[in-house]
Amino acid sequence: MLWGAMDNAREIAERSREASYRLQRLSIETRNKALAAIADALSERKEEIFAANRLDIESAQKAGLSQVLLKRLRFDQQKLDEALRSISSLISIEDPIGRILARTELDEGLILEKVSTPIGVIAVIFESRPDALVQISSLCIKSGNAVILKGGSEAERTNRALASAIYDAITGVARDFENAVQLVSSREEMGSLLQLDDLIDLVIPRGSNELVRAIKESTRIPVLGHASGICHTYVDRDADIGMAVSICYDAKCQYPAVCNAMETLLVHQEIAQEFLPRMAEKFRSANVELRGDDATREIIPSKPATEEDWRTEYNDLILSIRVVASVDEAIDHINRYGSHHTDAIVTNNEATARKFLDSVDSSSVLWNCSTRFADGYRYGLGAEVGISTNKTHARGPVGLEGLTIYKYRLIGRGHIVSDYIGENAKRFTHRKLI
Amino acid sequence: MLWGAMDNAREIAERSREASYRLQRLSIETRNKALAAIADALSERKEEIFAANRLDIESAQKAGLSQVLLKRLRFDQQKLDEALRSISSLISIEDPIGRILARTELDEGLILEKVSTPIGVIAVIFESRPDALVQISSLCIKSGNAVILKGGSEAERTNRALASAIYDAITGVARDFENAVQLVSSREEMGSLLQLDDLIDLVIPRGSNELVRAIKESTRIPVLGHASGICHTYVDRDADIGMAVSICYDAKCQYPAVCNAMETLLVHQEIAQEFLPRMAEKFRSANVELRGDDATREIIPSKPATEEDWRTEYNDLILSIRVVASVDEAIDHINRYGSHHTDAIVTNNEATARKFLDSVDSSSVLWNCSTRFADGYRYGLGAEVGISTNKTHARGPVGLEGLTIYKYRLIGRGHIVSDYIGENAKRFTHRKLI
Repeated sequence: MLWGAMDNAREIAERSREASYRLQRLSIETRNKALAAIADALSERKEEIFAANRLDIESAQKAGLSQVLLKRLRFDQQKLDEALRSISSLISIEDPIGRILARTELDEGLILEKVSTPIGVIAVIFESRPDALVQISSLCIKSGNAVILKGGSEAERTNRALASAIYDAITGVARDFENAVQLVSSREEMGSLLQLDDLIDLVIPRGSNELVRAIKESTRIPVLGHASGICHTYVDRDADIGMAVSICYDAKCQYPAVCNAMETLLVHQEIAQEFLPRMAEKFRSANVELRGDDATREIIPSKPATEEDWRTEYNDLILSIRVVASVDEAIDHINRYGSHHTDAIVTNNEATARKFLDSVDSSSVLWNCSTRFADGYRYGLGAEVGISTNKTHARGPVGLEGLTIYKYRLIGRGHIVSDYIGENAKRFTHRKLI
Repeated sequence: MLWGAMDNAREIAERSREASYRLQRLSIETRNKALAAIADALSERKEEIFAANRLDIESAQKAGLSQVLLKRLRFDQQKLDEALRSISSLISIEDPIGRILARTELDEGLILEKVSTPIGVIAVIFESRPDALVQISSLCIKSGNAVILKGGSEAERTNRALASAIYDAITGVARDFENAVQLVSSREEMGSLLQLDDLIDLVIPRGSNELVRAIKESTRIPVLGHASGICHTYVDRDADIGMAVSICYDAKCQYPAVCNAMETLLVHQEIAQEFLPRMAEKFRSANVELRGDDATREIIPSKPATEEDWRTEYNDLILSIRVVASVDEAIDHINRYGSHHTDAIVTNNEATARKFLDSVDSSSVLWNCSTRFADGYRYGLGAEVGISTNKTHARGPVGLEGLTIYKYRLIGRGHIVSDYIGENAKRFTHRKLI
């Protein structure tokens, strides 16, 4: 299950592909049993895992990693508890596989079913956080997918300890889990794997924007993720100013380092004079650096915003501000400069709101609430695979459904197509049953 | 709307992107009106279109194109009638856009909706058949997508005449349709367009396997299509032999040139002695060339099948045959050599059938019926965009739904995330409304 750089990438992927065929046949009971076994193994072997993690952290400290990265690298009792809670909640989620999405009678005795299935083989590249290994392995096992994992080299000992516990746990439940979770260690190997679009069905990068961008550039396999989150809030002429101040403060300051935090504030010119000074005062209390266009700077003190600012995800206490003449100008700005992630309008005018919600081409469009709501947990998806700005397959916060696809199952009694062609042709009934 | 090689690919794509934003706002009434206008324009301007087509055909004849290609190139009254029928049926199909796929109350007054939307900008590359231009433009207009079309050079005059009629028709209904349908003429230009994964959301190739493969190799934009259809029928030990003969004959001979025709026949060893001679006799009557493995050739006369045969889509009256020891061996053969398109089992044993249906990793899996059923019309999808062997987004016969994605719409009353964090945190209700 743990492979070094010497192993051939194609062999690894072929093992995953074979495993994926076995996984497709496993019942939800067996898959849930495997999840429970992982939870048990992690608890039983926690000292071994914590020890491996301490060695990783020592090396990282010697290498001079930043405090932020060291914090992400840590896998301690708290991280373990979180992992166990998330596995337990995953076990209770309804089986995403084998759901009948549609059933149609094509003709008497000829029944078509569209049924959800695993995707197959998923490659996951994650940075630093070893807890991501547990989370993504669990999600893949729940959804019947085989997974190839590549973690950061700074977490190698922790990742190996976690992967080894997972391997023992799941193969103890059923030999069919052999190769269901494979960990690769070298960057070169993952590079080779990303070329195998005949064997790997989906790539999920978990980490920095740079990582996501680099992966997207280097593979033809579909990539689920977002390279950046340049989110906007537009405060309309008809906004309630108190509500607008509260929403914008939350969107910027509640957790500025994440992808769904606001990066650009757009304000209608007719409300700017009244709204901006109150907003700026609130932002000052949180030490937010403001960068405004000319119209903004006539109303409140701020640094000048450049064209570059409209395209920047700060992930920090910095905000660009622009005054616009209309909702249309706000929509155009967002569609042009945004990253199609999450954008909000604050207004009491329903017609304006509807126009905004219909026209902004983003995975989440919000009315009178904070952009920070856009995530899988808050959306009630049960488990979050990631947030996607893709326009195919899965968009926005993605739950387990994003790890599934479907197949068509057609069951007849000897039906042949010739009977439906030419004179005296039989007719299809196409009766929708589900 | 008609652009030459001089035009910059990025400009073309940007025009489509802008058009796509306008299309997203159009009502279904306006989109259906545009479809009706296209039908009218094609009827009114048919002589101009037929004349252009005659010139294309004359040139193609001079260039020595095969009869098959000449037939595909033809756009005459019959093709026009088919196009009009398909537009009229498309108008009657329910709007695929704006459908509420899910609605959840996250908390009091905070409502989340998942709503279907157009994908955005779709590039379509098709060969020979000018009727594909009409079909795909109509599908894109119905689903609110902007489309960039590249047809074969041998159909250039016909394509221009059709595109010009479509352009006049739709912009006559609403100026918002400007650039909704763009036709590019040069191969180089389409090559450049395929690099613009920031502006184009989906590529649909319509034509030969070689075309699909070439497109898949040359772009990072998601491609909807299948490069080959190596379909199998497995005749199980517990098959009704009369039914098996009838289904296999239909799957191979009813229309051998298409992707869902059977290319390989797998037979359980315990029924081979009885089944193969009857099957071979039936195939002889249709001049089907048989290529068998050793066990097959001990029972019926046939050429020897090579490893290459198992990987070959003949699209012709040729069939490879292999005797297998079990349903598991049949499943392994199909997952290994097939193209994950459409595969069937003939058996009266439900347990064996279920195993086959669950384990064969293909977009359509069939029990006791012919592989030829796998298409959008027979599946009752209303309109067929194509057949996909992808494992993400859309799989199998793809209807209008394959041209849609979704966005999340969250509507609050000033809700902020801070209220759901820390002590005295509000709780999410996550109440499923739809």
